[in-house]
Amino acid sequence: MPEYLPTAPYRGTRDFLPAEMSVRTQVFDHLYEALERFGYLRYDGPILESAEIYERKSGQEIADQQLYTLTDRGGRRLALRPEMTPSVARMIAGNAGSLNFPVRWYSHPNCHRYERPQRGRVREHWQINADIFGSDSANCEIEMFELIHALLGSVGATEDMFLVRANDRNLLGSALTDLVGVSAEQLGQVFGLVDRWEKYDKDKLAEQAAEIGLADKQFERLGDVLSAGTALLDELPAPVKEASNLVKVLESEAASLVRFDPMIVRGLAYYTSTVFEVFDTSPENNRALFGGGRYSDLAGMFTSQQIQGIGFGMGDVTLMDFLDTHGLTPKPRSEVDVVVIPVAGELAGPARQVAAELRKAGLRSSTPLELRKLGKELSRADRAGARAVVIVGQEDWDAGNVTVRSLADREQQTVALGGAAAAVRALLD
Amino acid sequence: MPEYLPTAPYRGTRDFLPAEMSVRTQVFDHLYEALERFGYLRYDGPILESAEIYERKSGQEIADQQLYTLTDRGGRRLALRPEMTPSVARMIAGNAGSLNFPVRWYSHPNCHRYERPQRGRVREHWQINADIFGSDSANCEIEMFELIHALLGSVGATEDMFLVRANDRNLLGSALTDLVGVSAEQLGQVFGLVDRWEKYDKDKLAEQAAEIGLADKQFERLGDVLSAGTALLDELPAPVKEASNLVKVLESEAASLVRFDPMIVRGLAYYTSTVFEVFDTSPENNRALFGGGRYSDLAGMFTSQQIQGIGFGMGDVTLMDFLDTHGLTPKPRSEVDVVVIPVAGELAGPARQVAAELRKAGLRSSTPLELRKLGKELSRADRAGARAVVIVGQEDWDAGNVTVRSLADREQQTVALGGAAAAVRALLD
Repeated sequence: MPEYLPTAPYRGTRDFLPAEMSVRTQVFDHLYEALERFGYLRYDGPILESAEIYERKSGQEIADQQLYTLTDRGGRRLALRPEMTPSVARMIAGNAGSLNFPVRWYSHPNCHRYERPQRGRVREHWQINADIFGSDSANCEIEMFELIHALLGSVGATEDMFLVRANDRNLLGSALTDLVGVSAEQLGQVFGLVDRWEKYDKDKLAEQAAEIGLADKQFERLGDVLSAGTALLDELPAPVKEASNLVKVLESEAASLVRFDPMIVRGLAYYTSTVFEVFDTSPENNRALFGGGRYSDLAGMFTSQQIQGIGFGMGDVTLMDFLDTHGLTPKPRSEVDVVVIPVAGELAGPARQVAAELRKAGLRSSTPLELRKLGKELSRADRAGARAVVIVGQEDWDAGNVTVRSLADREQQTVALGGAAAAVRALLD
Repeated sequence: MPEYLPTAPYRGTRDFLPAEMSVRTQVFDHLYEALERFGYLRYDGPILESAEIYERKSGQEIADQQLYTLTDRGGRRLALRPEMTPSVARMIAGNAGSLNFPVRWYSHPNCHRYERPQRGRVREHWQINADIFGSDSANCEIEMFELIHALLGSVGATEDMFLVRANDRNLLGSALTDLVGVSAEQLGQVFGLVDRWEKYDKDKLAEQAAEIGLADKQFERLGDVLSAGTALLDELPAPVKEASNLVKVLESEAASLVRFDPMIVRGLAYYTSTVFEVFDTSPENNRALFGGGRYSDLAGMFTSQQIQGIGFGMGDVTLMDFLDTHGLTPKPRSEVDVVVIPVAGELAGPARQVAAELRKAGLRSSTPLELRKLGKELSRADRAGARAVVIVGQEDWDAGNVTVRSLADREQQTVALGGAAAAVRALLD
């Protein structure tokens, strides 16, 4: 007995069979369309990158524990990209001379991280990345928030289903320093603590605050600051607020797109001011769907030119969960519109000819590959989601005709070959 | 002075900036559409697979020299897929119980091979895979040839630009054995020699034939067989021909889609009967664009169930070269249809509102992120390929109006906000 290899995909990766792929394609096509309506241009890049670009920039957790690395036969140390930002930074830096900044770019790469597989965590995920490069205007922040609403709207979400929570790390830094009395040395660690604020219980947070060296009173004050919402802004110094793009957003007509929330910090090291996270408001799925932020120096490891940017990455797993939770997952598309069935093997050629005519008219059309009884082919066409079949019989064919049959009501009509496409089309609506 | 990392992508891989990506997207969308009109369903799978599936099946050259491998933290030996067939075989085997055979599937994966980069050879390439699984009927061969013509037709190729050359390895095997006197032990090596027939000069071929142990007369006879074309069929035994799907194709109405050519063998180990290659007929680019064939036991390493298949893989590099050679490469799409320009910073909000209205009407619309002079924004909109701009001025806006300007003839008109989309649309055609 031969030994068979397992048919499951590598742990943490996924096979997308046609039904699931059809759902995904519909969702992503809506997102691409929404992005292109805003003038975002799609790009793509290699999965393999120099390992060094992640070790320098993506934060220690990714580089130390999550990177898939390999060495090629020429001795180059490579990594499967864990995220798109370093790749796009490389491209922007390499082409900065010919780009007309600011530019709006998007991509849809797959990214690899070595994670322990669990709900919402996979090792290969697909991520829509959208960024503006080369502008520090608050108009960018406003557009990002508009775009997020448009993207989620394009897949059927209504405004009550999600919430965009935004912060500015500089506002938070000022609050921590001026209002909580956090020292410059403690600041990085306290940011980390804030990032864990909603994940841990209060005792654990207090313990960690004490380890950082915060007094009990400071810890209490920190809790007040983080839950203050917009009221916090009244306590911050004017110059800090005037420098904040997010404050400009909150003073604009776009304020309703976003909620100021001092608790949002985002883990990734390269965000420098605005940060945001989009939350599912459903009680069953109350968690961050995706997020992003602004970076003041995107491509510093590739060029001396300082390039600002703002953007986000929307992962497929949490997005699909969101759609499922809200009943927004589209149905798989039918396999074909119409099946052309020859009643005998000798009529396979004529059936192919009819199918070719139907395709020219834009109809998705197939012919059976193997000769089966008509009844079997009819139920097969039904299972494939076809709305009609065209039956090719010898007598009809000799007279230049075919039979068009509705699979919904089983009514059929004999039509001239040239009229078949229109007769089928009439059954599709 | 800091040390900057190189901005070039890893050798043999490619960055696709927006202009090139737009060209590719247009081409691939045509191909997807053509495939879906034939009822082919898209699937996808992980880039990382167990290294073992390639070592068992893909042929020694790939496994020994071309595979990118790595070991994960759990000690699993993985490879970046060098081709899609083993992955899809795994999926088909794992889901055979719920599939309604025969099935038509397609995919568009990127595949990695460690090649010495040169024209037409990259280390990461994208490949359209189309296959029928679960049928041994000659209708499959006919459909494959129809599909190839439809795919190339969908991107603008006419019938004179390419040629489908097809063979049946069993016909060739019979010819080599019966007509050339090749022994069973020599057969594999002679297939290899045939595969190199058009690449090497005659002296080199003769030398290699001698090494295999062919007599001079046999080598001469081999040359006659390979250049005999359809006439060869007359010399082959009837049972061999009756068992050949390709012979059935040549006797059908679809014979004109393909040329029988005994010289086609294809390198890949798993093809078992029909093999084909599509050639560019242009003198500047006379070479194989892509190819495929039939395999009698697709998933033998995963299951005892014998699953037939036939399919092909169409790589992006040769396809794009083909389109270039024949002047068929589409132009990049414009970045937007229309740019909405506020004449002052305070009008950025109204401009966003206008742009949102235009997007709802299906128009790709952007607003400037930074405040520049109108003239600068007009030329910027022109460079972006916009056909129109909408100018938002304070007085107009207070009266509920905007100015719609054609970038082609610079004519402009003042219209009510609600009429802006229609006025812009009129300028697009």
